[in-house]
Amino acid sequence: MNLYKRRNKANSRFSLSAFIGIFSLFLCSVSYAADPLPSWNDGTAKTAIGEFIAAVTEEGSKDYIEPAERIAVFDHDGTLWVEYPMYTQLLFAFERVKELAPQHPEWKTTQPFKALLEGDMKTVGASGMKGLMEIVVATHSGMTAAEFEMEASRWLATTKHPKFDRLYSDCIYLPQLELLAYLRSSGFKTFIVSGGGIQFMRPISEKNYGIPREQVVGSNAVSEFQIKDGNPVLVRQPKIGFVNDKAGKPVGIYEHIGRRPVLAFGNSDSDMEMIEFTMGGEGRRLGLFVHHTDADREYAYDRESHVGTLDKVLDQADAKGWIVVDMKRDWQTVFPPE
Amino acid sequence: MNLYKRRNKANSRFSLSAFIGIFSLFLCSVSYAADPLPSWNDGTAKTAIGEFIAAVTEEGSKDYIEPAERIAVFDHDGTLWVEYPMYTQLLFAFERVKELAPQHPEWKTTQPFKALLEGDMKTVGASGMKGLMEIVVATHSGMTAAEFEMEASRWLATTKHPKFDRLYSDCIYLPQLELLAYLRSSGFKTFIVSGGGIQFMRPISEKNYGIPREQVVGSNAVSEFQIKDGNPVLVRQPKIGFVNDKAGKPVGIYEHIGRRPVLAFGNSDSDMEMIEFTMGGEGRRLGLFVHHTDADREYAYDRESHVGTLDKVLDQADAKGWIVVDMKRDWQTVFPPE
Repeated sequence: MNLYKRRNKANSRFSLSAFIGIFSLFLCSVSYAADPLPSWNDGTAKTAIGEFIAAVTEEGSKDYIEPAERIAVFDHDGTLWVEYPMYTQLLFAFERVKELAPQHPEWKTTQPFKALLEGDMKTVGASGMKGLMEIVVATHSGMTAAEFEMEASRWLATTKHPKFDRLYSDCIYLPQLELLAYLRSSGFKTFIVSGGGIQFMRPISEKNYGIPREQVVGSNAVSEFQIKDGNPVLVRQPKIGFVNDKAGKPVGIYEHIGRRPVLAFGNSDSDMEMIEFTMGGEGRRLGLFVHHTDADREYAYDRESHVGTLDKVLDQADAKGWIVVDMKRDWQTVFPPE
Repeated sequence: MNLYKRRNKANSRFSLSAFIGIFSLFLCSVSYAADPLPSWNDGTAKTAIGEFIAAVTEEGSKDYIEPAERIAVFDHDGTLWVEYPMYTQLLFAFERVKELAPQHPEWKTTQPFKALLEGDMKTVGASGMKGLMEIVVATHSGMTAAEFEMEASRWLATTKHPKFDRLYSDCIYLPQLELLAYLRSSGFKTFIVSGGGIQFMRPISEKNYGIPREQVVGSNAVSEFQIKDGNPVLVRQPKIGFVNDKAGKPVGIYEHIGRRPVLAFGNSDSDMEMIEFTMGGEGRRLGLFVHHTDADREYAYDRESHVGTLDKVLDQADAKGWIVVDMKRDWQTVFPPE
């Protein structure tokens, strides 16, 4: 009965069901004949991915993993989309400060808002994580969850990355889209597990990555249930709820998914705990990091970077068996065609 | 490509895929010819459920809902399994106090532990929600998440309900199992949304209800990522994290699922906010409550009950269009055969 349920989620028509059976049979032959990762160059990383997926999906293999346990988690910023020179969500927050400034006259004299409104980004940066958090909290609260998502969607659908002249929401990595699709067609359930705000990512997760909203794990603001003008809504409060970063990532994973992943993909030291938690499970596991080495096609940054610092990972990767993906060497193409 | 991905999650074999196509075609015809809810008596509730599912799944219907948005949420205690005369998780916590007492000599002189160890349940009850929470926190922390789940599973697999002489984990409602299966075969994704502990429910959610672990939303303890004897684990802290009850339920739903459900099923005033949130969305919705009216086959309790109080719901159901399911009248059978 289980297969029946799974296969009939999308429709309840008999003839359509039969048609799709035959159609998927056709697609299978095509897909398995072709390389599922055409944007990945041959090399250690591509080989490791292929061998891992083959080993855990082949029935009778000593590394076989039941479909229900095939959980793959991906960091977002710098792993699935561009995070340089600044996290996209922070740029959105900066824009919101300018938009909301008329309603907040106090910002003219309060840091870091004052500096931001004056374009003094050095002072904004000097305010550190505390200052940046204040900006995020102030600009992401006092509205319903639905209103916030509408604002985020609007901004993402209209704002371009200066280097690539494409929408921020289109600055996503083609090799990762292929990997996500390959994993799903191999029975994996794919999740985003990011330090970014859960509600900032959800409006784009399905369209960008084929990852449904309920498979996005992230940081959150405390929200409150209210009846507003007769409508039951959730209102975002000016208070951080959970920070899904570093040692918070395994906690967020366990809270949302309730299983230890078998594959995890990150790009910075902030993803180390998530990778350790993944690799610490019994049976075969795979842990990967994107190393941004491509100043021409994207960016080159690692140990000294202010975003996506990749330092301890580089020191420990070999000893711990983590795969470091060299963007310049391993990715034949970076972005999908527009 | 979407259909292809969806339909090939479970396997990557061509011939198997073709076989299943034909097999599911066969199952479809069988399943649609028969009554999907044989344990429900004909009446308002059964009719409302049937009409709702037909309306939202029929393409072209004005009430049609896309499969991705077909989210159905179910409370746990009293909605999917027995909660009387005491919430199952509390009984587990009481047992744990007795087991752990030798390691906690201070409990001999501290309330409500002292009363519990002396079997003075009146004093335990008088300690109220605060006292009960202290018991839960003390007995559910200081161990890894995996250890806790093992304890809960062991207890659930060995402890019987005194009235029904069946395991607590088997005191589940057959009509609800049918409804869950019917919803899933109609393209719905089913979730548990309970005030109970998320880790207490997850070990049984798949086996009991066909609901995978990642589709369980509940209250939680704060947990912490640690490396223990070289193993990366999550350790449960003696601190309540989130209480997924009353106005917390819509918050938990939004946090975990990120969508407003279209069907919600509860059994007490604690589920009102969840139902209101569900019914508040645009388009067709269904909100239901189990009314425990069957003293013979299960229990009869409502307005004055110390567990699962159903009072305001009964006053407001008609005006708000909520369906009150009368267990005695609407359910032909209560429990599945053992």
